[in-house]
Amino acid sequence: MPDAKYALGIDYGTESARALLVDVADGREAATAVYQYANGVITDRLPDGGTRLPAHDWALQDPEDYLRALDATIPECLRQAGVRSEQVIGIGTDFTACTMLPVRRDGTPLCTLPEFRAEPHAWVKLWKHHAAQPEADRVNDAARRLGEPWLQRYGGRISSEWFFPKALQILDEAPRIYDAADRLIEGADWIIWQLCGRETRNLCTAGYKAIWSKRDGFPRREFFAALDPGQKFAAVVDAKMSRDILPLGARAGGLTDAMAARLGLRPGTAVAAGNVDAHVAVPACTVTGPGKMVMIMGTSICHMVCGAAERQVPGQCGVVEDGILPGLFGFEAGQSAVGDIFAWFVRTCVPGSYQARARRRKMGVHDLLAEKAAAYRPGQTGLLALDWWNGNRSVLVDANLTGLMLGMHLGTRPEEMYRALLEATAFGTYIIIRTFEEHGVPIEEIYCCGGLPERNDLLMQIYSDVTGRSFKIARSAQTCALGSAMHGAVAAGSAAGGYDSIRDAALRMAGVRDKTYRPDAGAHTVYEEIFAEYRTLHDYFGRGANDVMKRLKALKGVE
Amino acid sequence: MPDAKYALGIDYGTESARALLVDVADGREAATAVYQYANGVITDRLPDGGTRLPAHDWALQDPEDYLRALDATIPECLRQAGVRSEQVIGIGTDFTACTMLPVRRDGTPLCTLPEFRAEPHAWVKLWKHHAAQPEADRVNDAARRLGEPWLQRYGGRISSEWFFPKALQILDEAPRIYDAADRLIEGADWIIWQLCGRETRNLCTAGYKAIWSKRDGFPRREFFAALDPGQKFAAVVDAKMSRDILPLGARAGGLTDAMAARLGLRPGTAVAAGNVDAHVAVPACTVTGPGKMVMIMGTSICHMVCGAAERQVPGQCGVVEDGILPGLFGFEAGQSAVGDIFAWFVRTCVPGSYQARARRRKMGVHDLLAEKAAAYRPGQTGLLALDWWNGNRSVLVDANLTGLMLGMHLGTRPEEMYRALLEATAFGTYIIIRTFEEHGVPIEEIYCCGGLPERNDLLMQIYSDVTGRSFKIARSAQTCALGSAMHGAVAAGSAAGGYDSIRDAALRMAGVRDKTYRPDAGAHTVYEEIFAEYRTLHDYFGRGANDVMKRLKALKGVE
Repeated sequence: MPDAKYALGIDYGTESARALLVDVADGREAATAVYQYANGVITDRLPDGGTRLPAHDWALQDPEDYLRALDATIPECLRQAGVRSEQVIGIGTDFTACTMLPVRRDGTPLCTLPEFRAEPHAWVKLWKHHAAQPEADRVNDAARRLGEPWLQRYGGRISSEWFFPKALQILDEAPRIYDAADRLIEGADWIIWQLCGRETRNLCTAGYKAIWSKRDGFPRREFFAALDPGQKFAAVVDAKMSRDILPLGARAGGLTDAMAARLGLRPGTAVAAGNVDAHVAVPACTVTGPGKMVMIMGTSICHMVCGAAERQVPGQCGVVEDGILPGLFGFEAGQSAVGDIFAWFVRTCVPGSYQARARRRKMGVHDLLAEKAAAYRPGQTGLLALDWWNGNRSVLVDANLTGLMLGMHLGTRPEEMYRALLEATAFGTYIIIRTFEEHGVPIEEIYCCGGLPERNDLLMQIYSDVTGRSFKIARSAQTCALGSAMHGAVAAGSAAGGYDSIRDAALRMAGVRDKTYRPDAGAHTVYEEIFAEYRTLHDYFGRGANDVMKRLKALKGVE
Repeated sequence: MPDAKYALGIDYGTESARALLVDVADGREAATAVYQYANGVITDRLPDGGTRLPAHDWALQDPEDYLRALDATIPECLRQAGVRSEQVIGIGTDFTACTMLPVRRDGTPLCTLPEFRAEPHAWVKLWKHHAAQPEADRVNDAARRLGEPWLQRYGGRISSEWFFPKALQILDEAPRIYDAADRLIEGADWIIWQLCGRETRNLCTAGYKAIWSKRDGFPRREFFAALDPGQKFAAVVDAKMSRDILPLGARAGGLTDAMAARLGLRPGTAVAAGNVDAHVAVPACTVTGPGKMVMIMGTSICHMVCGAAERQVPGQCGVVEDGILPGLFGFEAGQSAVGDIFAWFVRTCVPGSYQARARRRKMGVHDLLAEKAAAYRPGQTGLLALDWWNGNRSVLVDANLTGLMLGMHLGTRPEEMYRALLEATAFGTYIIIRTFEEHGVPIEEIYCCGGLPERNDLLMQIYSDVTGRSFKIARSAQTCALGSAMHGAVAAGSAAGGYDSIRDAALRMAGVRDKTYRPDAGAHTVYEEIFAEYRTLHDYFGRGANDVMKRLKALKGVE
């Protein structure tokens, strides 16, 4: 289609970035390309055999990988699709978050300067950098002590993964870097600055990761002062963070001449404000209103739902006005391990005879287990598990909880345990849904995307039967990149052939598959009984009646 | 040694019988032979393609297998050792229990008579025949209702495996067989009858399986009457059971001429009263006094200890005066699955890579797991399990409990779970020990025999570290058969070259190995902490606070 208009979506993930070129008229995916970060996730040594990182819970990235990703994917997409630069009307991006870095006033990352290159704190702190726990503890203690009103918006606890604990860790451990940083910025915003030459801060990461709200802005200066006896941190927002907060889909600017030349696009092409990988998936699943939960199901699950009013929901990861869709309050929750648990099981608990059978039948071990597990009725295994192999994110917000399974007997088979683990993660989702509903955020339908719904019929049916809700699956297998492209089309606006709202974009560019998973009434009835058992154990082990999991974890370190 | 004196011990197990020819002077094992029962354990159809059994929880045997075992093993032992018939001074036997059968007044099993051969109830009911649960429930209900004083001697519950539930099942389901049975008799006593032509009843099975005590005899007639509206069962003891109760090691009689000729022994050779496989092992481990627990460790564990006075210990399987050693009260407890759990784990939960590595190193998977598990300190896995894969025999006496494991995370490895299972069974033993001690039965030292202590260094050290007690291992690998031979030597008496008491026999014929497992003080301290956690979970799931295991088990059957 020589006259068709296209939008580009760039999805910055943990190990790689993906570009997707999408027809603005109908969401058709014209081309895609992936770039594996040259320096990947840095957990051991800085690149080129440099400094060894101080501890195992560090996770850094190289900002130059983000630029190399653009070089490697965008020209390739244009080439694949035979699309001319003038047909591309907008670019949207999404990023892992909070993934942040210290930069100069002109946007230069400190880690690219020779004098700071050997300093770990000069590099990008990836979302899963977990070394700022002491700083997170200080943030939470101070917030509780000072009665900060925003704490409840984040389920009562700020995560070590978020912006201010990471910023405070730089000040604590590398004051020279803190002083040299004119700006502390999300990767999501830094890439926009590179594309259009303007420093902005997107509402989504500001709201979910940096304690900003439309009503109250950032936390008050006195709070930051309380975190640092040296008083430097008091000015962290004023001195080092842009307060130019852009809503989602807003036009951050036009592509710079230099970047346009480098990527083979036209100068001035609309660039949307930054965004978070999970959140852009919501309209890409066709969801543009309240009451419809979107679940990104992969190694973990991220749950997002919009509501008309702000509510305090225990254990939610955050509620942000306009944070997912304009005009609505966006709620986020999560399960810290889902696909990861199934992968653990296949790696750790499946006998060789199963592996051999799967090989003979040229199928994966997961598929073999699912085939066998599908032969059981709900309740027939007699097993029940708590899905806390990586702690519990929602609704307990406790990383020190661990997994549990009960009901085993001498005839218990691997596929029964596998099924119990599938069910346990469904119960974990159901607790989240019930908790939202019990606190005034109704959830009527579920939309899914991510790697897990692909080819996992049994899993999806179990989720539907457990929760008693229908599950729809996004049409696109690249939902995040599609969502970014949709935001790019909105940034371009209807005058340029795009859209004036994300709702309009979703109507045309997003879709779901034909197959909807619907709950079986009989199965749901049995699962309600088992869920009552799950909830009793969840509360017994998770709410302080018996802290055995934490005490055992503490004992592990005792010599 | 042409003048040496020998005793024969015959150990009737579940799948086979073993004969052991032992030098009376020092316990040296001169020869051994095993006979695999031709008709094995009958769970599906009667022999020769006969009647199909009514249900899956049936387990029968063929009494002719017990005689074939004598033919196959005793002459073979004499031949192997080059021992002459006059050198054999006594024969002792031990049997699974309660393993019982209906016979004619002359000892002929009903199942050998053509008119009854097709009737399942005419055959031997093996100890693990579990189809008499409704009858056991009636026995327990009636005992509680009528306030029968003996119920407390059996931990408050009579098992479906024991004598009267099995007898009552015959009356319920096959009254013709019940009427035709002149005698209902333990296999342990029937084989003695065959050897020496005299019907006796041994004190051990009478006490542990048929509710007999030295002080009170059998339950009163009114109790049996209450079990049967037709009033036939009122006379079960008077009409169908010998009350000629012989203490252990007593001479039941001399070998009959016919049996002597058949087996190549001398007529009149002393035959000891019947006994139970577990109980004869006690003196064969050198234990002849109070305070020393003997554990037979295999697929399950049987715990036996003697005390000076009768005590009511919750969840014990039984206390019988003179039941294990003369002059002492013999207490018995048990864990219903131990080696069975480890075997389940190896069968169900160990990845192919481990199986391949074990093959390459020409070792068993158990040994590989134990080698890896031994690298962990107590507490280092962070895991804790409840060892209820086959219910809980002591101290909860509840077959409907199931297994539990908690503490798993995404890095948990198979050897850690294996170690947690070893530890869980040790905690199960420790609960039994602590319960005995808390109720006035002190336990200072542990002696072990059975298949598990062989080559399982890690397991034995864990048991020692968990319980804080030293563990000694019996010298003989055939402890039951040795114990039977010792009782044969006692039946012969010192005048014939044997012994006048089991204590004298144990001093000369029994022994333990050089290696004693001693508790490490630091490990015991850590295990005391973990045991406190085990006990909390044990009581929470086992004593009614949360009956989730039973409710899940009930749900399994729901269509």
